[in-house]
Amino acid sequence: MGKEVIHRVQVEFGDCDPARIVWFPNFFRWIDAASRNFFVQCGVPPWHELEQSHGIIGTPLVDTQARFIQTASYGDRLDIHTRITEWRGRSFVQHYRVMRDTTAILECTEVRIFAARRSGSEPGIRAVEAPPDIRAMCS
Amino acid sequence: MGKEVIHRVQVEFGDCDPARIVWFPNFFRWIDAASRNFFVQCGVPPWHELEQSHGIIGTPLVDTQARFIQTASYGDRLDIHTRITEWRGRSFVQHYRVMRDTTAILECTEVRIFAARRSGSEPGIRAVEAPPDIRAMCS
Amino acid sequence: MGKEVIHRVQVEFGDCDPARIVWFPNFFRWIDAASRNFFVQCGVPPWHELEQSHGIIGTPLVDTQARFIQTASYGDRLDIHTRITEWRGRSFVQHYRVMRDTTAILECTEVRIFAARRSGSEPGIRAVEAPPDIRAMCS
Amino acid sequence: MGKEVIHRVQVEFGDCDPARIVWFPNFFRWIDAASRNFFVQCGVPPWHELEQSHGIIGTPLVDTQARFIQTASYGDRLDIHTRITEWRGRSFVQHYRVMRDTTAILECTEVRIFAARRSGSEPGIRAVEAPPDIRAMCS
Repeated sequence: MGKEVIHRVQVEFGDCDPARIVWFPNFFRWIDAASRNFFVQCGVPPWHELEQSHGIIGTPLVDTQARFIQTASYGDRLDIHTRITEWRGRSFVQHYRVMRDTTAILECTEVRIFAARRSGSEPGIRAVEAPPDIRAMCS
Repeated sequence: MGKEVIHRVQVEFGDCDPARIVWFPNFFRWIDAASRNFFVQCGVPPWHELEQSHGIIGTPLVDTQARFIQTASYGDRLDIHTRITEWRGRSFVQHYRVMRDTTAILECTEVRIFAARRSGSEPGIRAVEAPPDIRAMCS
Repeated sequence: MGKEVIHRVQVEFGDCDPARIVWFPNFFRWIDAASRNFFVQCGVPPWHELEQSHGIIGTPLVDTQARFIQTASYGDRLDIHTRITEWRGRSFVQHYRVMRDTTAILECTEVRIFAARRSGSEPGIRAVEAPPDIRAMCS
Repeated sequence: MGKEVIHRVQVEFGDCDPARIVWFPNFFRWIDAASRNFFVQCGVPPWHELEQSHGIIGTPLVDTQARFIQTASYGDRLDIHTRITEWRGRSFVQHYRVMRDTTAILECTEVRIFAARRSGSEPGIRAVEAPPDIRAMCS
C-alpha cells in the first residue's frame, strides 16, 4: 500500500467564502502542501536541495480528480491522509483523503510528474524518470 | 451544445511559483470565476440577488476532473471557454477549456449543484433542483 | 503590555513566487489568521458564535502598516507574536512580529474594528464598541 | 506628478469572506498586480526579460501602509490608480487609490526596491539602483 503521511490543516476564516464554507480552490492549496509534506516526511530532501543533486524542481500536476463529500468551515481541523498508490515511468499517482475526525470531506487522486527545468533561459518544465532513491523512500 | 462564454484571465507574477509557472490551485480560482461569469453572461442575476428570489447562494462543486496539458506563466493571457454540457436533476456538468491563443493549457469537467442554505443558524448547504428559468437562460 | 499569543506558520512552496521568496500578500493572510487565533487563545468564542451572542461577525481592518525586514522562503517556520497594544472606543491596535527563530522577518501594526452586519439584506458592515468581556479576556 | 496608470479588477465571489466583503489580503494581491502593470504600461519590459538585460527579478516590498475606507464586494469593478510619487536611491514610493466609480475604497503607499538575485545558489535578494532607463519611462 505504501507509506501514509497525515498533513494537518487548520481552516481559517479567510479560507471561507460568502456561503461560509471553504472556497474549493483552497483545498487544492492544502493538497499541494500535503503532497510536498509527504515527501519531506518520507525523508526526501526539499526541492531546492533536489535541484542541486537531481535537477528536480518539483512534482507538478498532470491530472487531478476530486470528489467533494462534505463541506468544511472555519475552526475545522482537517487531516489529509496522503499516499502514493502507483508508480508509472515518469509519473506517479498520489491519493488524498481529507478527514475531519471520522467524517470524509474530500477524496482526491492526482497524477504528478518529477519535473526538471527546460535547458536555456526559456520558462517551462519537462518530466524526468522517478529517481530510484526517492521512490524507495516513499514506498 | 449549449451556450459558450469566454472568460479572460491575465496571469500575474504572484500567480506563479518558484518553478516560474502558474501554481495549479490558481487555475481553480479562475475556473470558479469563469463558472460564475458564465451565468452572468447568460443573463442570470448575481447570487446575492438569487438568494432573495430563489434562495440559491451559489453553485458549489461536487466533483472536478482537470487535465493539465501545458504550463502557463506570467504575462500570458488565458481564455477560459465555458459551457454547461449536461443537466441532471439537482446537478449539472460544466466544462472548461483554458486556451492561450490556440494552445490548450488545461481541460476541466466539473459537477456542480445549485445550493441553498440549511435552515437554522447551522453552517452548511443543501442541493436544490435547477430553477427552470436559469436552465433556459444557459442552454 | 497585554497578552501575547504566538501563531506558528509553515511556509509552503505555493506561498512563494518566481523570485523564490514568500509573495507578500501571503504574509497578510497569515497575519489575519494570527489576529483571529489571538482571540481564540485568549478564550474569546469563534466569530460564528459571537454573531449569535454579540452580533459581531469579525474584526475587519481599518488601517495597516507593515515593514518587511527579511525575506522568507519555503521550508521556513515562522512565529507570529501577536498582541493588542491599544484599545480605542470602536477600534483597537493589534501588533505582530513575524520571526524565524531569532530573525525578525516582518513587523506589522493594524487598526481593526469590531464589526456587525448592517441591518436589512444590504451587504456591508458597521463598527461597534469593543464588548467589555472580550476586552478583559485579551488584556 | 509622474504618470498614472489605471489597473482594473473584477471582484469575484471567491475574493470575499463569510462577512461577504473582500477579504483584505486580496487587495494586496491586486495592488501587487497594479504595481507590475504600471511598469508594463509605462513600456518597461516584463521582469523575466529584465532579468536577462538588467539582472532585475522584480520590485519586492519594503514597507506598506494601507487605509481601508469602504468595503467592496463581489460584482464590484475596482480601478486601481497607480503612480510613482518619489524616487530614492535604491527604493521608490508607489501610491495606489482603489476606486469603485467615484467611491474611494482603499488608499495604499508602498516603498519598493529593484531586486536582483544574490549570487550563488542561496535563495534571497538584494536591492540595486533604479536603472535610469526604467526611471525615465515611469516619470
